[in-house]
Amino acid sequence: MDVTIEAPRVDHADCRKVSRVLARIGDKWSVLIVMQLAEGPLRFSEIKRRVNGISQRMLTLTLRGLERDGLAIRTIFPTVPPRVEYRLSDLGCSLCEPVKALGQWALTHMAEIDAARERFDRENVT
Amino acid sequence: MDVTIEAPRVDHADCRKVSRVLARIGDKWSVLIVMQLAEGPLRFSEIKRRVNGISQRMLTLTLRGLERDGLAIRTIFPTVPPRVEYRLSDLGCSLCEPVKALGQWALTHMAEIDAARERFDRENVT
Repeated sequence: MDVTIEAPRVDHADCRKVSRVLARIGDKWSVLIVMQLAEGPLRFSEIKRRVNGISQRMLTLTLRGLERDGLAIRTIFPTVPPRVEYRLSDLGCSLCEPVKALGQWALTHMAEIDAARERFDRENVT
Repeated sequence: MDVTIEAPRVDHADCRKVSRVLARIGDKWSVLIVMQLAEGPLRFSEIKRRVNGISQRMLTLTLRGLERDGLAIRTIFPTVPPRVEYRLSDLGCSLCEPVKALGQWALTHMAEIDAARERFDRENVT
């Protein structure tokens, strides 16, 4: 029972701080958008096409949230019609590594999670 | 503009799958609980004390979700009163690495995010 994995102890104050940051960056849409922008700048419509299932409104809100947190940069090019492009800031780029690792984990272990869910639901019929 | 970061392209089907998994593991409470259980098995009350601000109900729901996904294991010891303990499964342990990296990123860059938010809110007064 004492086989502890090496882990930095997160104290109460840290916990609250981390939870505040994760509330923003940890939601699935932010993660998926950051994963897409990691490949390079994209327009709104391109992001919408790549991030399957996201609504116009949710994409707008999430991009604004990422911009507010200093993770994404919104650039308006003075063309006719104006072209609006989103890209990651340096801070956003530094987030790519852990976010991609999480996304990759999700892809790798999807089947195991699905199997666990089915088993759980079979054994816990209410 | 073509400085692309090496990243596995996530296609549409993957995107939906990842988003489904992240909806579960990517929420802030799951991340914080997994971070705590990474240190070793804990009782309900111990998790509640360590994860600052989580309600009884939300902790119950999140632990059940983690159990359903095969990430956490709930063990009841036949003592009087019965002792209930939670620990990570092997699958849950494999999630520790990316989750801790994300948590660590959040801790490291908290101040930058806070500063970006303040700047954004100052410049976008509605």
